[in-house]
Amino acid sequence: MIHSLEAHACPVPDSGDSATITLAHGEGGRLMRRLIREHILTSIGNEFLTVLGDAAILPPLAGPLALSTDSFVVTPLFFPGGDIGSLAVYGTVNDIAVAGAVPRWMSLAWIIEEGLPVGTLIRVLASIADAAARTGVRVVTGDTKVVPRGTADLLYLNTTGVGEFIHAPPPGPAALVPGDRILVSGPIGRHGMAVMTCREGLAFQPPPTSDSAPLMDAVAALREANLPIRAIRDATRGGVAAVLHEWAEMSHRTLSIDENRLPVTPAVFGACEVLGLDPLFVANEGTMVVATTQESASDVLEVLHSVPETDQATVIGEVTDRAIAPVVVRRSLGRPMPLDEPLGAPLPRIC
Amino acid sequence: MIHSLEAHACPVPDSGDSATITLAHGEGGRLMRRLIREHILTSIGNEFLTVLGDAAILPPLAGPLALSTDSFVVTPLFFPGGDIGSLAVYGTVNDIAVAGAVPRWMSLAWIIEEGLPVGTLIRVLASIADAAARTGVRVVTGDTKVVPRGTADLLYLNTTGVGEFIHAPPPGPAALVPGDRILVSGPIGRHGMAVMTCREGLAFQPPPTSDSAPLMDAVAALREANLPIRAIRDATRGGVAAVLHEWAEMSHRTLSIDENRLPVTPAVFGACEVLGLDPLFVANEGTMVVATTQESASDVLEVLHSVPETDQATVIGEVTDRAIAPVVVRRSLGRPMPLDEPLGAPLPRIC
Repeated sequence: MIHSLEAHACPVPDSGDSATITLAHGEGGRLMRRLIREHILTSIGNEFLTVLGDAAILPPLAGPLALSTDSFVVTPLFFPGGDIGSLAVYGTVNDIAVAGAVPRWMSLAWIIEEGLPVGTLIRVLASIADAAARTGVRVVTGDTKVVPRGTADLLYLNTTGVGEFIHAPPPGPAALVPGDRILVSGPIGRHGMAVMTCREGLAFQPPPTSDSAPLMDAVAALREANLPIRAIRDATRGGVAAVLHEWAEMSHRTLSIDENRLPVTPAVFGACEVLGLDPLFVANEGTMVVATTQESASDVLEVLHSVPETDQATVIGEVTDRAIAPVVVRRSLGRPMPLDEPLGAPLPRIC
Repeated sequence: MIHSLEAHACPVPDSGDSATITLAHGEGGRLMRRLIREHILTSIGNEFLTVLGDAAILPPLAGPLALSTDSFVVTPLFFPGGDIGSLAVYGTVNDIAVAGAVPRWMSLAWIIEEGLPVGTLIRVLASIADAAARTGVRVVTGDTKVVPRGTADLLYLNTTGVGEFIHAPPPGPAALVPGDRILVSGPIGRHGMAVMTCREGLAFQPPPTSDSAPLMDAVAALREANLPIRAIRDATRGGVAAVLHEWAEMSHRTLSIDENRLPVTPAVFGACEVLGLDPLFVANEGTMVVATTQESASDVLEVLHSVPETDQATVIGEVTDRAIAPVVVRRSLGRPMPLDEPLGAPLPRIC
């Protein structure tokens, strides 16, 4: 299954190293320790990770803790706008941030398919190092397993993040009331379409680019502005539709979205049209849904527009009493139509 | 690669459910939420996990934190003495415990190969639930990914544990001085030989059984006895030999082991003889190495013998000034011989 790096429209980094990972690298002996010392510690080492103990020993945190885990099985490993390394860091940081906590530390576990070029590992590590530096999150403990050819697809990562609650988190979707406004922090569907078109070798012009990015600065800016935020959630698997359905279920309200107001890039619009996909169902990796009061919507927008990662935030709809369906979309013409709950897998292995 | 459950000497649980996991179960939609609600929450749910937020919200811990991550890629999933579920819980608990902390919470991330019987998932979940109950550790957050056939081998798990340091941890291997005694907490090499003989269909009588078990009670008993422990480490990948080499390197001493004193079960002894393996290099999953002062060795043994999981603990050697090699073994006949550092992979995918 070592085909992923050869897909058409995907950026394939120069490996720079002809060596490959062997099963022996995963067995806790000298080869594994050399791999860790020469490559992992040099790129992402810090005073916690360098100890290489069974467990990292970390200073106490004053507030409640946030804990979040994610595995990353994306193919290809490198795609327009990101790669599995930065995706893993930002994905974990975002889960912590939208829960209302400040990301502090993360673990990093590798499941490597025998035969992975060492150069690929080095490139992923460099990306992890960049993303960790950008977010201030430190990789403090790790694990490396190597499995035989044909029992993975080049590389899977797992990251588990620890955050600290310094302020009270938003009340959550149960607090939604009619009139509340629903915002998205940027154009939707970019990550899923970037990975898919590059994986399938579809030559769209312009090519969709992933939105993979950290949302912690945007969440912090909202907190500092002290605005009445009801709920925040990053719209990953299942897209914005999955968040809307979850919030509708937890609030017993209807979330009513205006199709004309959905921000979609020309690249995503074109690719979705050709492939018959609705961008509402396509995964994002640096885009969140925010609910706030009617009165505060414009202030929330102003704050989001001041942060680079969310400078295209926009209001897409509002909360109403429970109507014909949990989630409805006002299409360009005609009456509001129910929006289905994402059932399955339009796009497997996009994160 | 769905062959593993058919290996000869392996216990194959009755699946009890003819359904299989599909790619759609991993995509964040309705199928995935049903899987989580019907199976995962019913077996391991608690007030933290049940929220199903982006991140678990956990109460503050007073002391420093321990964080440890491990992926489990063992094949077969079920083996004499354990399975991937209990292995994942005990492995994480042990990493936290031997670091000197009290295990509190853990994350649980699934990478499932399309086609895994739902019954297998249910059996693994039951085992995780039992192990979590036995150790008091709570699964507070999780993630589920499904990858296409041929890109995993039935099931991989990742667990990341959070522990709390209530007492100061042992000083560690750098504190070793000549005369210190080296103990193991039970017969060595059981886990690796159990998995390997069952995977390869080797019909040894008696069959080796895994030592997979939690070590937190034993570590707590040592702490409560207030004995001068220098270092503790569970002897997983690379076996006891890997721990001895790490400690020798960090202490700049020689660790001298007496082959006659190494506890080895008849089953492991027989299997190792036939396969030409040294039990010192074979992985354990519920056996630790402990270093203490010469004077306290018998007291430490007494404490360990009072705990069920370590009731066969024994002294296997001592620390000396740096001699001919970092680790030496006094074989039955003749002079001490250097013990190699584990280089590679005698037994892949045993954890």
